[in-house]
Amino acid sequence: MSAEKLSLEDFEPGRRFPLGPKPVLTEEIIEFASEFDPQPMHLDEAAGRASILGGLAASGWHTSAMLMRMMADSYILNARCEGAPGIDLMEWRKPVLAGDTLQGQSIVLEARAMRSRPGMGIVKFRHEVANQRGELVCLSENSVMIRMRPAPEDTIMNSEPSA
Amino acid sequence: MSAEKLSLEDFEPGRRFPLGPKPVLTEEIIEFASEFDPQPMHLDEAAGRASILGGLAASGWHTSAMLMRMMADSYILNARCEGAPGIDLMEWRKPVLAGDTLQGQSIVLEARAMRSRPGMGIVKFRHEVANQRGELVCLSENSVMIRMRPAPEDTIMNSEPSA
Repeated sequence: MSAEKLSLEDFEPGRRFPLGPKPVLTEEIIEFASEFDPQPMHLDEAAGRASILGGLAASGWHTSAMLMRMMADSYILNARCEGAPGIDLMEWRKPVLAGDTLQGQSIVLEARAMRSRPGMGIVKFRHEVANQRGELVCLSENSVMIRMRPAPEDTIMNSEPSA
Repeated sequence: MSAEKLSLEDFEPGRRFPLGPKPVLTEEIIEFASEFDPQPMHLDEAAGRASILGGLAASGWHTSAMLMRMMADSYILNARCEGAPGIDLMEWRKPVLAGDTLQGQSIVLEARAMRSRPGMGIVKFRHEVANQRGELVCLSENSVMIRMRPAPEDTIMNSEPSA
């Protein structure tokens, strides 16, 4: 556990973290859909064009997973993160089509210590993901468990020779 | 578009559809995490055991994707489904660990015609997913767009020879 990693205290409300860019590839859309959401409009270009989505479209669950990867690369892997209890909001506003590029930001809405788990906090984020035309395709909010910064006395104790 | 497929009218409130069983495999946990959520507790057994999750644990986003696949296999692929606008509720209540088996049900909460899209309806579901010990691991609600049953006159018109 690196001391340089982001702790609860680093997630001040209003702080923004960039997401992406993430190109959305045809093969990835089909691969995800084959495993998790094998509906025709997520598997086949012609079926996608014939659907209300207007083209080969990523499953919304795939868009959500791509959001998670963008979060990981932007700040989660660099934070003292312990997982998440769920998703508070997930809106798939517009189709995410093959060839699109996703980009966006996570905004800290609130951060607080957990009463039930000493040393742990909850950070609530809003995630905004747009396509290459700046159209909002995905709006989400979720909370993540992040450890508080170790207290200075812990550091001192750890640096003392053991008895 | 098969006439035998489930239409909006078939999703009466209270109707239940079984989900799973779906065994959760170590390789699948690691494969999903490598692509979408590469945090140590989703990639490595020892890191999982050292985390608050208590073992190699599926990413919550992976659990959500597995839920979608169970929905697809149970009723979505057999319905006149046109996609979903998002997720209303997604709670990851307990860790989903390698070796677990997921099973549950989707319950129709409400079904209604859409005003904005003639012939289309919205079905709101509650999804309950438990592990092999019957512990609720995932609770979710989401709405799905499903076409209404074709009107009889459409069928008659379609069966007439074209002028």
